[in-house]
Amino acid sequence: MASTHAAEVLVASNRGPVSYTVDDEAGGSLRARRGGGGLVSGLSAIGPDANAVWVCAALGDGDRAAVHRADGGLLPAEDTGGQRVRMLDIDAEVHADAYNGIANSVLWFVHHMLYQTPLEPVFDAEFRRQWAAYEAYNRAFAGALAEEAAEGAAVLIQDYHLALAPRMLRRLRPDLRIGHFSHTPWAPPDYFRLLPDDIAAELLTGILGADRAAFLTRRWADAFKDCCHAVLGPGIPSGTRIGVHGLGADGDFLRKRAHEPDVDERMAALRQEIGEGRRTIVRVDRTELSKNIVRGLLAYRQLLDDHPEWRERVVHVAFAYPSRQDLAVYRD
Amino acid sequence: MASTHAAEVLVASNRGPVSYTVDDEAGGSLRARRGGGGLVSGLSAIGPDANAVWVCAALGDGDRAAVHRADGGLLPAEDTGGQRVRMLDIDAEVHADAYNGIANSVLWFVHHMLYQTPLEPVFDAEFRRQWAAYEAYNRAFAGALAEEAAEGAAVLIQDYHLALAPRMLRRLRPDLRIGHFSHTPWAPPDYFRLLPDDIAAELLTGILGADRAAFLTRRWADAFKDCCHAVLGPGIPSGTRIGVHGLGADGDFLRKRAHEPDVDERMAALRQEIGEGRRTIVRVDRTELSKNIVRGLLAYRQLLDDHPEWRERVVHVAFAYPSRQDLAVYRD
Repeated sequence: MASTHAAEVLVASNRGPVSYTVDDEAGGSLRARRGGGGLVSGLSAIGPDANAVWVCAALGDGDRAAVHRADGGLLPAEDTGGQRVRMLDIDAEVHADAYNGIANSVLWFVHHMLYQTPLEPVFDAEFRRQWAAYEAYNRAFAGALAEEAAEGAAVLIQDYHLALAPRMLRRLRPDLRIGHFSHTPWAPPDYFRLLPDDIAAELLTGILGADRAAFLTRRWADAFKDCCHAVLGPGIPSGTRIGVHGLGADGDFLRKRAHEPDVDERMAALRQEIGEGRRTIVRVDRTELSKNIVRGLLAYRQLLDDHPEWRERVVHVAFAYPSRQDLAVYRD
Repeated sequence: MASTHAAEVLVASNRGPVSYTVDDEAGGSLRARRGGGGLVSGLSAIGPDANAVWVCAALGDGDRAAVHRADGGLLPAEDTGGQRVRMLDIDAEVHADAYNGIANSVLWFVHHMLYQTPLEPVFDAEFRRQWAAYEAYNRAFAGALAEEAAEGAAVLIQDYHLALAPRMLRRLRPDLRIGHFSHTPWAPPDYFRLLPDDIAAELLTGILGADRAAFLTRRWADAFKDCCHAVLGPGIPSGTRIGVHGLGADGDFLRKRAHEPDVDERMAALRQEIGEGRRTIVRVDRTELSKNIVRGLLAYRQLLDDHPEWRERVVHVAFAYPSRQDLAVYRD
């Protein structure tokens, strides 16, 4: 089952540490780009020296072309900074249904309590079709992890995209030590139970397939336990341990970065645009419904209404970069 | 402080057991109508023999005219079936801001988790203005109850409209036994804390002014306690006891009513319209966002999709009667 280079440490996440674009000007050759984002920086501590592999999904045409070119889905080391990365060429429609349809339109909305509940969500036949894709997507990850893992290896499965994978992997490889980490909030039971009972149970038992289910805060870990009690009955019904692990920014990196020349240049340009002697309120966000960007603008207006002495003296700079443009609700 | 006919039992609710319309055809005279609704039938067990008074708000022009005509706000016994009813002529704009603005647009939405949270609620200066009206409305009830109550009387304050009144009344009349009953769900802390911290604390300490805070289910009573812990700190910070009291329909009344001649007539007409030999799925609701009327229609469609053998053989009858037409979101 395990390949010849069986890994001792495995990471699984939807987005990997590298992505590819097709360069039309260079005759359709592929250009690799190492990614940013919270997960990539949080997990890059697992360096190239560890006997590790990162399993991720192909997200676009460039990625798919790279997988077809790659040896067994393992990307060339020169593209990944030496990290072993196995990219899964999941059917594009299956991926869209699992990622956009279920993970980002249902699970993200449930855990952030974003729904306009009188009208949404609707759990109809279309939802069931997308749910089957979400199962297939999770199964593809579980299968690849089972193939790559050495006996007794540690597997770290990331986030709400892969809630079913721990249990699926446990069945394929009972020898593995499996962790699941939720990088998002977890909804309280009254909101989580908007989900159909069978779906709610699948998500919970999926994560309970892990030896350790980890959350960023005590509050969200408690919410997960509350949901287990409410949906599955009293007591966590497996040996799963619940952990709380804050995952902060890399302060040392950021402090160092803040004093590099290109940052100074950008700061000077921004200063000039804002004007001498003015205070600034700066925010940088994905254009994401949970980020409360509109309320931030309203709060700034309220500040100027309540404290007119600050007019002309404080400038609000809101950087919002596009995200999830595949979802109509975000484009709106 | 207490009037000459000081009451031993007092009920307070926004809507009273009687309402008035101005009859233009009868030269502007007032026509009294005894009300329906869950609260009225639930509380009508307090009959005219008890030394009781019901304190409520004037809801329209007819009610206001009746209050102006009434002796100290006590409505004529012939209009109320003998019950003592004191109707409060709260300024129409104050009532609208308290009832539509805060109670039904904010508190109802919080407790039923109805908001489209990325965009609403917004707690701006307009909200603060309406909140002041909600405080004034609660203060009017507390003042009237303090005037009407005999030494040591029992006061039953109803629902989310009057969350502040228990504490206000406690300050005016420490001798009284005060109960507060929530006829709605109570939101879990993660949702309740959408409210500004000071507002959340006012609502909780308002109800904690009662000796007993009662809820329809254990789940909602627990949610209230969880909110107290989350907002006010560990432990219920007063001597308030939390109670769970189901408030069912009057089964004997309904069984008897179901066999009266006018019901038989309506049943026969309905039967004819539906057609012989067909099953029916009947629902009767206020057109209220929390009632899930749209999802009911979708579920019926799903039934016919999944079980085509039921087509033409089962008819869904949905009676929806207008409600809260003062709120734009309901008209939409």
